[in-house]
Amino acid sequence: MRHFSIITLLTDFGHQDAYVGIMKGVIAGINPCAHIIDICHEIPPQDVFQGAYLLYTSYKYFPKGTIHTAVVDPGVGGKRDIVCVKIRDYFFLVPNNGILSFILQEEAPEEIVRITNTTYFLRKPSRTFHGRDVFAPVAAYVSCGIKPQQLGTHIQQLNKLDIPEPTRTKMGHIIGQIISIDRFGNLITNITKKHIWDLKTAGKHLEVTLGKRKITGLSNTYVDGKTGKPLILFGSAGFLEVSVNQGNAQKYFKAGRGSKITASPDK
Amino acid sequence: MRHFSIITLLTDFGHQDAYVGIMKGVIAGINPCAHIIDICHEIPPQDVFQGAYLLYTSYKYFPKGTIHTAVVDPGVGGKRDIVCVKIRDYFFLVPNNGILSFILQEEAPEEIVRITNTTYFLRKPSRTFHGRDVFAPVAAYVSCGIKPQQLGTHIQQLNKLDIPEPTRTKMGHIIGQIISIDRFGNLITNITKKHIWDLKTAGKHLEVTLGKRKITGLSNTYVDGKTGKPLILFGSAGFLEVSVNQGNAQKYFKAGRGSKITASPDK
Amino acid sequence: MRHFSIITLLTDFGHQDAYVGIMKGVIAGINPCAHIIDICHEIPPQDVFQGAYLLYTSYKYFPKGTIHTAVVDPGVGGKRDIVCVKIRDYFFLVPNNGILSFILQEEAPEEIVRITNTTYFLRKPSRTFHGRDVFAPVAAYVSCGIKPQQLGTHIQQLNKLDIPEPTRTKMGHIIGQIISIDRFGNLITNITKKHIWDLKTAGKHLEVTLGKRKITGLSNTYVDGKTGKPLILFGSAGFLEVSVNQGNAQKYFKAGRGSKITASPDK
Repeated sequence: MRHFSIITLLTDFGHQDAYVGIMKGVIAGINPCAHIIDICHEIPPQDVFQGAYLLYTSYKYFPKGTIHTAVVDPGVGGKRDIVCVKIRDYFFLVPNNGILSFILQEEAPEEIVRITNTTYFLRKPSRTFHGRDVFAPVAAYVSCGIKPQQLGTHIQQLNKLDIPEPTRTKMGHIIGQIISIDRFGNLITNITKKHIWDLKTAGKHLEVTLGKRKITGLSNTYVDGKTGKPLILFGSAGFLEVSVNQGNAQKYFKAGRGSKITASPDK
Repeated sequence: MRHFSIITLLTDFGHQDAYVGIMKGVIAGINPCAHIIDICHEIPPQDVFQGAYLLYTSYKYFPKGTIHTAVVDPGVGGKRDIVCVKIRDYFFLVPNNGILSFILQEEAPEEIVRITNTTYFLRKPSRTFHGRDVFAPVAAYVSCGIKPQQLGTHIQQLNKLDIPEPTRTKMGHIIGQIISIDRFGNLITNITKKHIWDLKTAGKHLEVTLGKRKITGLSNTYVDGKTGKPLILFGSAGFLEVSVNQGNAQKYFKAGRGSKITASPDK
Repeated sequence: MRHFSIITLLTDFGHQDAYVGIMKGVIAGINPCAHIIDICHEIPPQDVFQGAYLLYTSYKYFPKGTIHTAVVDPGVGGKRDIVCVKIRDYFFLVPNNGILSFILQEEAPEEIVRITNTTYFLRKPSRTFHGRDVFAPVAAYVSCGIKPQQLGTHIQQLNKLDIPEPTRTKMGHIIGQIISIDRFGNLITNITKKHIWDLKTAGKHLEVTLGKRKITGLSNTYVDGKTGKPLILFGSAGFLEVSVNQGNAQKYFKAGRGSKITASPDK
């Protein structure tokens, strides 16, 4: 029987080394029919938060049954657990370090297993490269039909990151922050449509303040308004974004992750 | 019935985000047997010209029937069309922004369809990420056998970029320019063998001037001449290139895209 | 008959161009069922040594029969040979420039063939892009069952790089050097467990000197000791590494490839 399951990889391994390729070699050796798809390998080293964000924005665009393998794992070889988590129709193989935090804001896990069964590891696993010795072979075996409960013992709780929530001032303004910045320099905030609806302002009267600049009116596309001018819109993951038409908002605003942003009804 | 067509992806999405991975997830959900091959994702943001150049240099090395999906799309969500273009035995799914310009210098499209049939889009497509919501699902459906005419309505014309052509001086010199620079720092010009033949000089008497430097004689390989010395040759895409043996011509000449280069018979 | 062999690619082509994608197009045109896996494409341009190191750390994690195609080839188009080498149960398609040197320290080749049979090349191969015109098609044909002896004539010797070996001082210290640095800034040396055993010191009494700093005691994981503090351990490829807990040893030590490191028993 052939197993065509999809295994995704999301890591902070980058592209300059062979670490990702080695994981794929291990998977192919166990399940030659696994379909491996890279989600991202350029997570900044040890940046679990960014890994959590990207995993959240991507996981549900894959077919049911996909095995999402996320190795942003600064605690490798230490006391942290590796877990297999079933959420909706997806399997997640992750260190128990909060990398599922964004997803867990919306979904409850159906099953959480602490992975301890070394049957499914490479022999003599190192303590420095669990991507190769644990995550890759376990992902391959899960893609062959091994069930989560065969991997170890059920546990009840997952560790979570502290994901910043927008706050509301007495004046009714919403204060959010930038949580991610993409390649185009789009500044992605933690403000959602729901937060803006609560402001009771039609979109076109929304006003956003970032640093000393104000942007008024919600755009629909990255090309609304004039070339080179900043705009705000809801991006593809559902969050309010600050962008610059044909430009780079990160450079324009000199903003970074954590920069505060205020949304308020236009006066 | 299984559909093993190849879908290629060429974008300016980079590798730091999950955008490319998400497109692949969408494709795999519609056609699990599609064979997805990355052509390039490091096109500089919004650089349609470089996307057009790389697409030209690569498309014909793929098997007939390949679906080339090129999303360098600064106008996403705006008024620009998305088109399916059949050229020779290839399908191209592209924004109608000139990204086929280099190819259209050599080939006439057999069929151009403006893609409007939302049946083949993700439901509720965003206006900010058509790679995910339009290009990926349409590519997957085409790989399953959906015909271009099922995607929308035929149109007659494609938008084209202004691709600079070499000019000829009264003295008979050819003035070209650098159109692309590769990872090795090779300076790729818009001068072809035909232009050089027109110079009526045997290759070894060709002289090229770039900035204040002259290079005489056409080389056959990147290792002709001495280590560290500049040379000229025809590169793998058929264009005249300036290179440095074991070095980097971009750094050596401090040249950039658009830099002028003069080719003339050696005196 | 379908041929599901794995073809790996390791190059210095980077991700900004289409060179890797083109190779995959050529392979897919010859063997649509080949399973192509990227090992690494971000080898610094012309850095055969780093290519050799990464190929060594990865090749054996792939299934038997894998065709490892390594194109770090500064001599492309010149006098260097392209060879097919059988080692253990793997095939290697490489320029004969020393890129197998690390592997050859451990394994003897069973078969070395100088590739000359143009039947398996693209027609009219260029002298500037053998990745596309020679390596890719030959890899595809080997994945279809073509035997090494069909590719050309047997030769006896392979060129080798000068891989630095640790030396031993009269005082009994081992002087090694940094041979590779990974994305996390881990400083990988040429010192192996065998060298350390020869020091006749239990691991916890080992002392390493790098620049003006000393690190005492062998760690087991990257998270031993305090955050931000340097540590030494044996990394996943079996070499002694200098690392910084949750940090970057390359930045911490301002060390580079070739930097000397001394290992000695703690006094």
